Amino acid sequence: MTYCVGMMLDRGLVLMSDTRTNSGVDNISVFRKMFHWTVPGERVIAVMTAGNLATTQAVISKLEERTKAPEDREPSILKCTTMFQVANHIGELLRETIEERQLSNGQSGGPRFTASIIVAGQIAGMEPRLFLIYPEGNFIEASEDTPFFQIGETKYGRPIIIRGYDRTMSFEDGIKLLMVSFDSTLAANLSVGMPLDVLVLERDNFEPLHQRRILASDPYFQEISTNWSEALRAAFHSLPDYSFNQDEEAG
Amino acid sequence: MTYCVGMMLDRGLVLMSDTRTNSGVDNISVFRKMFHWTVPGERVIAVMTAGNLATTQAVISKLEERTKAPEDREPSILKCTTMFQVANHIGELLRETIEERQLSNGQSGGPRFTASIIVAGQIAGMEPRLFLIYPEGNFIEASEDTPFFQIGETKYGRPIIIRGYDRTMSFEDGIKLLMVSFDSTLAANLSVGMPLDVLVLERDNFEPLHQRRILASDPYFQEISTNWSEALRAAFHSLPDYSFNQDEEAG
Repeated sequence: MTYCVGMMLDRGLVLMSDTRTNSGVDNISVFRKMFHWTVPGERVIAVMTAGNLATTQAVISKLEERTKAPEDREPSILKCTTMFQVANHIGELLRETIEERQLSNGQSGGPRFTASIIVAGQIAGMEPRLFLIYPEGNFIEASEDTPFFQIGETKYGRPIIIRGYDRTMSFEDGIKLLMVSFDSTLAANLSVGMPLDVLVLERDNFEPLHQRRILASDPYFQEISTNWSEALRAAFHSLPDYSFNQDEEAG
Repeated sequence: MTYCVGMMLDRGLVLMSDTRTNSGVDNISVFRKMFHWTVPGERVIAVMTAGNLATTQAVISKLEERTKAPEDREPSILKCTTMFQVANHIGELLRETIEERQLSNGQSGGPRFTASIIVAGQIAGMEPRLFLIYPEGNFIEASEDTPFFQIGETKYGRPIIIRGYDRTMSFEDGIKLLMVSFDSTLAANLSVGMPLDVLVLERDNFEPLHQRRILASDPYFQEISTNWSEALRAAFHSLPDYSFNQDEEAG
């Protein structure tokens, strides 16, 4: 499995991904799932991947190749004129890559080679945008109503993002929120693992404001993890007590 | 889907279940998923079900029929001498019921008719016990290391139980904890729905200490739901702040 979250704030975009890949529980490795490309002053595009590793690596390699010589190799995400076109291009690349693999393995390929991708970024003169791309190549865009996307093991870490998210929050609070969400997920699903990658894309700043790899030994992450357990227990005890005689008391 | 939790405390057992069943999103109904049988002073047995409704209703009906005339219709859960035998019997009944349905629908029946069951209870002279029964009829028992079982939509509500659980907690705190867990699940999965059923089985008290149906309009549940959002946000803000310059500060 995998866990990646892309979150849109007023100030820009915050992305976090884990790095574990596994084929069974006895074959685990660390692979980067977060990538970005920049044209200083003009555009920044970040991608996070979940799903079949051969598929996602092939997509990233193709994106990478085309950005190395964007003049010769069309289309390149460095030449697309809008983020919508970028998402469209990556969606096509994803769909083609999955389809090729499935065709060469016969119908039995089924859903084995699928993957999903989160795309985030901004091109000068336009708004920062955030997309979730499906294996079929189509995609949806984040909005005020749904300002974040998750891929991979999304459930354990979702309730805290729903409650804690506020579009006006600082990047630091955004990272803290995602760390809490990742901490809950790491505790529950062995196929999500440290280290984590973090990337912050500030609005109208066309290179990453902050990027970092958070190791399991990271003192801040450990502090969050420990304190969150205590804070949750305190929050729980701050709630009004249940009584077996609710009805009489309510009356 | 469904969400049911059975939790073992020092004082006894706390059970909670939702009541929504659905076949698609446009066909939802309320069905009880929690049942119990008592022989005053001698035994109390409770069951919660998740999965195919026709399967679980058939299992419950068969259990019910046999308890109506336990002398004539063997085996009855009211005559089994241990909770292990009770779990074994219910497991067999579940496996047979699923198998019959799959056979009469050909191999294509596949996993369509499956269900899982949580069994909780106590027989005089023995300890309270809690089991999780799989569609195959086999089962596992709760222990100090794994003192609660969930069936149905288990992920959203799991992190808070893991953090909040304490085997010495009161029944009231146990119910409060499960309400928080259900609240997170209800907010995330439409196929889990109010009202909720609650049952408390006190150790060595062979009839339910407390049972109640919690409606969506229940003032205590609404209070928990509202306050939990606020308490979570406060807990989140009580955590140390992230800084872009972790490394220097840590140094």
